[in-house]
Amino acid sequence: MMGSALSVPFVANGHDVRLVGTRLDKEIIEALKQRAPHPKLRASLPAGVQPYFAEELDSALEQADAIALGVSSAGVSWAAEILGAQLARRPVPVMMVSKGLVWQRERLEVLPDVFQALLPERARERVLPVGVAGPCIAGELLQAAPTSVVFTGRSQAACVELAELARNDFYFVQVEPDVVGAEACAALKNAFAMGVGFGAGVHEARGGGAGSVAHHNYEAAVFAQAIVEMQRIVELLGGNPKTVSGLSGTGDLAVTCNGGRTGRFGKWLGTGLSLREAVAKMEGATLECLDVLRELSTALSWYDAAGRTTPSELPLLRHLADVALRGVPVSMPFAKFVATSPA
Amino acid sequence: MMGSALSVPFVANGHDVRLVGTRLDKEIIEALKQRAPHPKLRASLPAGVQPYFAEELDSALEQADAIALGVSSAGVSWAAEILGAQLARRPVPVMMVSKGLVWQRERLEVLPDVFQALLPERARERVLPVGVAGPCIAGELLQAAPTSVVFTGRSQAACVELAELARNDFYFVQVEPDVVGAEACAALKNAFAMGVGFGAGVHEARGGGAGSVAHHNYEAAVFAQAIVEMQRIVELLGGNPKTVSGLSGTGDLAVTCNGGRTGRFGKWLGTGLSLREAVAKMEGATLECLDVLRELSTALSWYDAAGRTTPSELPLLRHLADVALRGVPVSMPFAKFVATSPA
Repeated sequence: MMGSALSVPFVANGHDVRLVGTRLDKEIIEALKQRAPHPKLRASLPAGVQPYFAEELDSALEQADAIALGVSSAGVSWAAEILGAQLARRPVPVMMVSKGLVWQRERLEVLPDVFQALLPERARERVLPVGVAGPCIAGELLQAAPTSVVFTGRSQAACVELAELARNDFYFVQVEPDVVGAEACAALKNAFAMGVGFGAGVHEARGGGAGSVAHHNYEAAVFAQAIVEMQRIVELLGGNPKTVSGLSGTGDLAVTCNGGRTGRFGKWLGTGLSLREAVAKMEGATLECLDVLRELSTALSWYDAAGRTTPSELPLLRHLADVALRGVPVSMPFAKFVATSPA
Repeated sequence: MMGSALSVPFVANGHDVRLVGTRLDKEIIEALKQRAPHPKLRASLPAGVQPYFAEELDSALEQADAIALGVSSAGVSWAAEILGAQLARRPVPVMMVSKGLVWQRERLEVLPDVFQALLPERARERVLPVGVAGPCIAGELLQAAPTSVVFTGRSQAACVELAELARNDFYFVQVEPDVVGAEACAALKNAFAMGVGFGAGVHEARGGGAGSVAHHNYEAAVFAQAIVEMQRIVELLGGNPKTVSGLSGTGDLAVTCNGGRTGRFGKWLGTGLSLREAVAKMEGATLECLDVLRELSTALSWYDAAGRTTPSELPLLRHLADVALRGVPVSMPFAKFVATSPA
């Protein structure tokens, strides 16, 4: 969905966009080839977008000036495999809207780094992927509603080059040098938005309904603690905690809490449903929050054991992992929260 | 309303609370004396609250262990006058839920400092007011919904003492030493929440309604820029920019954007109504955002002239002041926003 929506600013800027589906996107590409609306976004893509099946990748890549990757975090290694040879022969700028954190070799890595490391050596040296982060609901970008994002990567030049192709009067692109911070936020916000979502569920469980006095104090306290903990996690990953204050942290968490499936999943947990029941309510929707929490939980055990974190740190994250991975009932540890980042 | 709601945790902790109305609160106190619901909060106060008219202040203060001030920012000097003699004779801890910024003597001052400076010398030396900040909707606290706040002031001991009287299993109190940062945020959030509110109005003006694809990307970008600019303003005032990340900044801005009159006022402006029309729609509701923007605008002219700020800084704040004070139409300067605080 985000990959499809990203076509909008590029088409508006006069570029040709070729949209390639993975093998899981057959239905979407079939619909688009028939000029039907995008089945997931329930809206039409701009006329300048040409749809391609996965099998047609080679012709789609012909003379492409740049490649944008919208695969899920699980698809990043597949993408590196199918694009690697081509990028080794003819390196072009790569941008990624995929979001996630991967625990490997005793550290949490952000996806642009994971993708780059998986490329063949010749490509790895010349392709420095650019991550797209910040508050962007795909359906809004599709309608050209004002959207502000960051382009982030290890090559400032690559970020600037792609930003100049993308930005216009509804798609505002900032270049953010801290790729670890910005990409970590993009993954973390899903985990923490689940926790903010608990508030609506607790409210409902206490007999509250729409229109009655809500649990916004609860949600706001979790939101603030999420920002404080995201700063600490970014620091642990070697990024800059200040990045969390901006578009990619605060901005993306705000938009993710404003509706969306992660918040709905959190709400179900907040009402007191078991983990299994809450997952069932989501009817097969992708729950990135669970993937992120799984990686974070592994990382946290390792950080604790290595003495890089103390058990009193990150109380919100620990509770979220307990709830979402181990079936512990929601019981927000407000008394352990802090006013401001101690860092 | 906030002063009344603050009675809830104290009564729950076994304290007697005497609620004194100003001369503008006659109707409220009359209703409460008849054990009717609080007319503004539309709910009953706990049984342990004794209502007093302004004229009965002296008997209300008899043997009081502490005083909590809930007057509007305009009422702070009046409060200092009527409480000054008493505090000079018998100093007790003072806490304040009043929020605002006052431009005086070439600097913006936070209300605990303003109040203290107005006390008679004997009181001024012994009373170090404690500000209550952070995300707290009064109606939620009244229902004992989980609420997390900061107590902040120039005396850590006074903060700790009051926090111990107030905190319990639904009212979570953190002590925040940065009184300038926390109190500045408490005032600033009203100005910036108005700007976040523009998004819903722009959405409506573009033909969007409830349930259709919204302008959450717009709102989130403004939210993030608000946090970045609040950090800069706190820095200009001599506070710690890090305070903005926590409960008193991010948390309070989040709750203020979640419904409430400031957001509704911003929405009206976003739809394209003139300033006068938008004010009329609010039917006389107090608009703290206008007071805060007036003080900030004066401060900004002075900072610009003194070279402490450059005209390219704080683009969101400048636009909000243009809209709310000078009738300029809403046209969000997204292209001037930054990814992260440059500080």
